[in-house]
Amino acid sequence: MNIPSRPTGQQAYDILRQRFARMGQIRNALGILGWDKDTIMPAGAADSRAESIATLAVLSHELMTAPDMPDLLARAEPGTDAMATANLVEMRRQHAHAAAVPGDLVEATSRAASRCEMAWRTARQDSDFARLLPHLQTVLDCTRAVAAAKAGALNLSPYDALLDQYDAGTRQADIDPVFAELASELPHLIATALDHQKSLPAPIAPTGPFAVPAQEKLGRETMAALGFDMQRGRLDVSLHPFCGGAEDDVRITTRYETDDCINALMGIVHETGHALYEQGLPKDWRAQPVGEARGMSLHESQSLLMEMQVARSRPFMEWMAPRLRAAFGGNSNDAPWGADNLHRLVTRVRPGFIRVDADEVTYPAHILVRYEMETALIAGTMKLADLPDAFNARIHDLLGLKVPNDRLGCLQDIHWPSGSWGYFPTYTLGAIIAAQLREAAMRDNPAIMPAIAKGDFTPLLDWLRPRIHARGSGASTKEIVRDATGAVPNTGPYLRHLRQRYCAQV
Amino acid sequence: MNIPSRPTGQQAYDILRQRFARMGQIRNALGILGWDKDTIMPAGAADSRAESIATLAVLSHELMTAPDMPDLLARAEPGTDAMATANLVEMRRQHAHAAAVPGDLVEATSRAASRCEMAWRTARQDSDFARLLPHLQTVLDCTRAVAAAKAGALNLSPYDALLDQYDAGTRQADIDPVFAELASELPHLIATALDHQKSLPAPIAPTGPFAVPAQEKLGRETMAALGFDMQRGRLDVSLHPFCGGAEDDVRITTRYETDDCINALMGIVHETGHALYEQGLPKDWRAQPVGEARGMSLHESQSLLMEMQVARSRPFMEWMAPRLRAAFGGNSNDAPWGADNLHRLVTRVRPGFIRVDADEVTYPAHILVRYEMETALIAGTMKLADLPDAFNARIHDLLGLKVPNDRLGCLQDIHWPSGSWGYFPTYTLGAIIAAQLREAAMRDNPAIMPAIAKGDFTPLLDWLRPRIHARGSGASTKEIVRDATGAVPNTGPYLRHLRQRYCAQV
Repeated sequence: MNIPSRPTGQQAYDILRQRFARMGQIRNALGILGWDKDTIMPAGAADSRAESIATLAVLSHELMTAPDMPDLLARAEPGTDAMATANLVEMRRQHAHAAAVPGDLVEATSRAASRCEMAWRTARQDSDFARLLPHLQTVLDCTRAVAAAKAGALNLSPYDALLDQYDAGTRQADIDPVFAELASELPHLIATALDHQKSLPAPIAPTGPFAVPAQEKLGRETMAALGFDMQRGRLDVSLHPFCGGAEDDVRITTRYETDDCINALMGIVHETGHALYEQGLPKDWRAQPVGEARGMSLHESQSLLMEMQVARSRPFMEWMAPRLRAAFGGNSNDAPWGADNLHRLVTRVRPGFIRVDADEVTYPAHILVRYEMETALIAGTMKLADLPDAFNARIHDLLGLKVPNDRLGCLQDIHWPSGSWGYFPTYTLGAIIAAQLREAAMRDNPAIMPAIAKGDFTPLLDWLRPRIHARGSGASTKEIVRDATGAVPNTGPYLRHLRQRYCAQV
Repeated sequence: MNIPSRPTGQQAYDILRQRFARMGQIRNALGILGWDKDTIMPAGAADSRAESIATLAVLSHELMTAPDMPDLLARAEPGTDAMATANLVEMRRQHAHAAAVPGDLVEATSRAASRCEMAWRTARQDSDFARLLPHLQTVLDCTRAVAAAKAGALNLSPYDALLDQYDAGTRQADIDPVFAELASELPHLIATALDHQKSLPAPIAPTGPFAVPAQEKLGRETMAALGFDMQRGRLDVSLHPFCGGAEDDVRITTRYETDDCINALMGIVHETGHALYEQGLPKDWRAQPVGEARGMSLHESQSLLMEMQVARSRPFMEWMAPRLRAAFGGNSNDAPWGADNLHRLVTRVRPGFIRVDADEVTYPAHILVRYEMETALIAGTMKLADLPDAFNARIHDLLGLKVPNDRLGCLQDIHWPSGSWGYFPTYTLGAIIAAQLREAAMRDNPAIMPAIAKGDFTPLLDWLRPRIHARGSGASTKEIVRDATGAVPNTGPYLRHLRQRYCAQV
């Protein structure tokens, strides 16, 4: 690229567009390399692949932190187009995050996280928090240093600086009142849901084995019905399901079990929600910051909208029950294959220790505990050595369960050992937004859920596309949700949804 | 990277090592992205993937042509280690190739080749050379300009400069006498082979259908037996078989037909030959120029050694025949499943128009014609408009066939339209070297072919590993072949092999 020595505002913006497009293409390449690593890569390629991925990440970081970037970003004038303006805002935000942290701290954090993750695998297995402690302390120290550096550069509190990495514009001040309300409502809500559940027939799980090809075929048909563009994506298998890939090549994965015919399907629907968001991002802003998904809360809102609001609803099961029956040779008179039974099966409430196995009602309790812990640890108001007791005490408060060991407690998640602090709240923010979006969508078009009962997901997607997907990163999560629903993210629709579905309270 | 302003010789070499390691990792990434594109990528991702691939290629080119590279390359001192010395030689050669051509010529050539390739697809289909002519003329003009630029920088003739891209150190002066000898021997040899063939029972092809899973299983077992490390590679399906992927992740492909049980297997053996070379490259020189495969002649020698010298031999069929029978439920008394019949089947000689369908005896005739044409076109001693007549005349001379149309003549190959000039001779150089290697290997260890008759390929691989694979790009093709066999590449063993196998002349 020929760079004028004193670029005009428009020239500076054009240069930035070209540079960010390069970073976008590197991100696409990393998306495919990462997908490959987690699905089909031969085991012996692990070290070599790690090198390739690290090299591309460094090249992208070098592009982002080139010495002339601050000047270009300061000088750039994108014109009057709103998306172009938002693009420059996003460029500046991404640059601030990348440039705030000195290279040696980036490296130290990455090394600490790699070591801690390795230590975590055996420490979790042996339920040995003490063994993890020194490693996790190093990760926490690095993370606090990163948070402090970013806080200064972005003029945010340290925790907000971490949060902003995953969810631009969302602040602890937004989350605290929302989560406080949940914390006060949840114990009663869970108790009421369990009471109500006792009044219903116990759900009966269909008995297998369920052939994997039949599960996969049904999964593909369901993806396509939901609106997934099969010409611009794939479905494959991996140990941990995810949505990855690249622009025009969105790849989701699932894991099949032959003794269950619904978990993999629900997983496919969940990842399809993520994928529809990616496939619906604004085409004119490919490989530009404003063309990316807004953040993890909104991303999770799309997967949970499809899984929790749609696929675990009674209308969806009206459509799906005969399909499940046909796929696995069930008899229509058999009780397990009825829509009512299957709906009770996918909405069963069972408080437990493990977050990823939790149902919709108890899930937020797991997040609340983690959010309280990580905000205190980042703020320095709690010592890491005190984490297990504090964690277990809050699980007991919210779920009434006594955690028997740390494997079932604060050692269960990979997030903190791997350096992902500030990530957990986005799960529950996503659930809250999902409920809010469904309520608003139904208000705008009451035909949406009745159409879903007939397998027609077009009205829902037509509502989502312009309001969520096509906005990319053109506004903050809060603004996008407000524009779509008339209100910033709030617990109203979420609590109404939980009370209606699980407590039969209309 | 912190670069000293006046690096010492050792410092300069270390900086170069780091830079070339980066380029090596980009090459690994491109290997996976390219493999993915040609095997499993969804169709709608084509444009986006092309952008990602182009971006990585440009990043690598920019690293190679950074302004301080000539100074670093001039100043570098790699010490006394022979491989390190060869590494610097290769760095300089690769840099000379990349730096010789101005950016706008690179771009013009790439654009012309893309357009010409598109025009070629329909022109070939319609057998319409006139329609291709203007596009191919542009590609030829660009290629001659590239050749001239590289010739100046590398102090070579224009054609040698093109050849050097695919086969470092091989020169037209080496090829001309070899190919002249072949051209004079070939017509008589083909006639003799056809005569001899008449004296043998006509081979009988087993009748299918042959289930794809059974073909794939046999293919995998054969790859493993040949020495392919399944922990560091994959076998998949693609339209055109190839060997690609990355370091520690060598991926081969094949294409199955249900009415044939041998073609896909022979294809797998061929690509396994390429893959064994890649898997056997020197581990200490990962991602460095000297750690790469030497060039296309030696690469093709490895695939042809496995396919032509090994898998189409009578000893191999001794081992394989019962395996084929078992895989496809054949009866051991059935004539088609006998080792003699199967061997005759895979060594059948049938002169034809299409190069890629040619047998071992007539194949070099196709290459001789293309080599004569492209050397004349690059030298400017022939006009492109005269290509069809000249091509057809030489096919008639060497194969006795009258080419009925250009689809079956000079329009059949993608090489010239896509800009690959100087590539064709490496196919036949590979065949010549393969015969020479097998003769030398058997001289050094006469147990090699008897072991193969029992399915033991270890003696052959043990011979190849240190002499060919582990040398990487540590010497020229000529030197590697001379060190391994005692003679530079020559037609002696190749002609002996053809006369023995096809004319029963010992």
